[in-house]
Amino acid sequence: MQKLELDEIDRVATYLTKIPGIGFKSAKRYAIWLGEHKTETSRLTEALKSLIENVTTCRKCFNLTTSKDGLCEICKNPERDASTICVVQSIENLVEIEQSNVYNGLYFVLGGVISPLYNTEHIIKRIEYLKRRVKEEHIREVILVLSSTTEGDLTVHYIKETLKGSDVKISKVASGIPVGTDINYVDKRTLAEALRSRVYI
Amino acid sequence: MQKLELDEIDRVATYLTKIPGIGFKSAKRYAIWLGEHKTETSRLTEALKSLIENVTTCRKCFNLTTSKDGLCEICKNPERDASTICVVQSIENLVEIEQSNVYNGLYFVLGGVISPLYNTEHIIKRIEYLKRRVKEEHIREVILVLSSTTEGDLTVHYIKETLKGSDVKISKVASGIPVGTDINYVDKRTLAEALRSRVYI
Repeated sequence: MQKLELDEIDRVATYLTKIPGIGFKSAKRYAIWLGEHKTETSRLTEALKSLIENVTTCRKCFNLTTSKDGLCEICKNPERDASTICVVQSIENLVEIEQSNVYNGLYFVLGGVISPLYNTEHIIKRIEYLKRRVKEEHIREVILVLSSTTEGDLTVHYIKETLKGSDVKISKVASGIPVGTDINYVDKRTLAEALRSRVYI
Repeated sequence: MQKLELDEIDRVATYLTKIPGIGFKSAKRYAIWLGEHKTETSRLTEALKSLIENVTTCRKCFNLTTSKDGLCEICKNPERDASTICVVQSIENLVEIEQSNVYNGLYFVLGGVISPLYNTEHIIKRIEYLKRRVKEEHIREVILVLSSTTEGDLTVHYIKETLKGSDVKISKVASGIPVGTDINYVDKRTLAEALRSRVYI
């Protein structure tokens, strides 16, 4: 049997599958394409090197930053409302909220939600750090933007318990019908939640 | 407005979108994940460097190889039937055919199909090279494994015309109902083609 499967391709494919959302079949296809397109691969490799050298996680909110002091542009911005922290699951969610221009406070990236099925100790640790931040920075409101799932609800509950005793208001985003969605396509749980959170007009 | 979008992340995302199948939104998500996971990113970068250094395209069939003489393991294997060439669209297809163990000849990777909409001159050039191979290597059969689409059919036609005058049999894979597919889910064109290519039993 000939060596059809090149180690170099397999290795790239294996590391690509570490990225959430890339399955093995796609990774293999991407790796083969990269093997066929060396110029593009060199550019990607250079870009990754620059990312490794320059990008770090903000030591206050876990957003990404290239700043040498380890603080992101949002945490350093004196025009942001430093009494409010918005807790998000991911940096992508942070970017989306920023793009919507409805929020001017600080952030805290949780990196996921608590789950009884997986080891989520790193998230527990971040919540402990959130508690310290709330106390030290005299935060007045913590807004939780977490998934409307069992794990999301568990995380909301855990944060609420952890922050108990701190003099801080805690809120969470409303559940309801997604904007632009036909009500016929909304599932029962969402409909019930939307009804419960009805707004008088 | 704060610098939310880091150039380093955007650059990685841009190069990732060059890979067919990765859209901009996914690429951005992958780039952010890579920014958050430097150990994994370093490993990926090393793997890509090794790929750039060691992997090349076979100068006979355009399969990938790490061999210094520029020939892949299939082209070099004396046990393969060197009188038959299977023309495939991509290296992935080559790998799939190899895994199915139904073929023992040589290959020729076309890298796509001819299209009137895009510049497919590189494919035309490969077909010219195929013609030379057929002549020089005294190939007896060329099997075309191309998409059952308008462009695929156009490519089949073009190859047939190009090889006219060469003393070579040309065949193409059968169209029909995919194995394991419920006939109720087969489209009309496939059904018609399968009927036309019916096999007496």
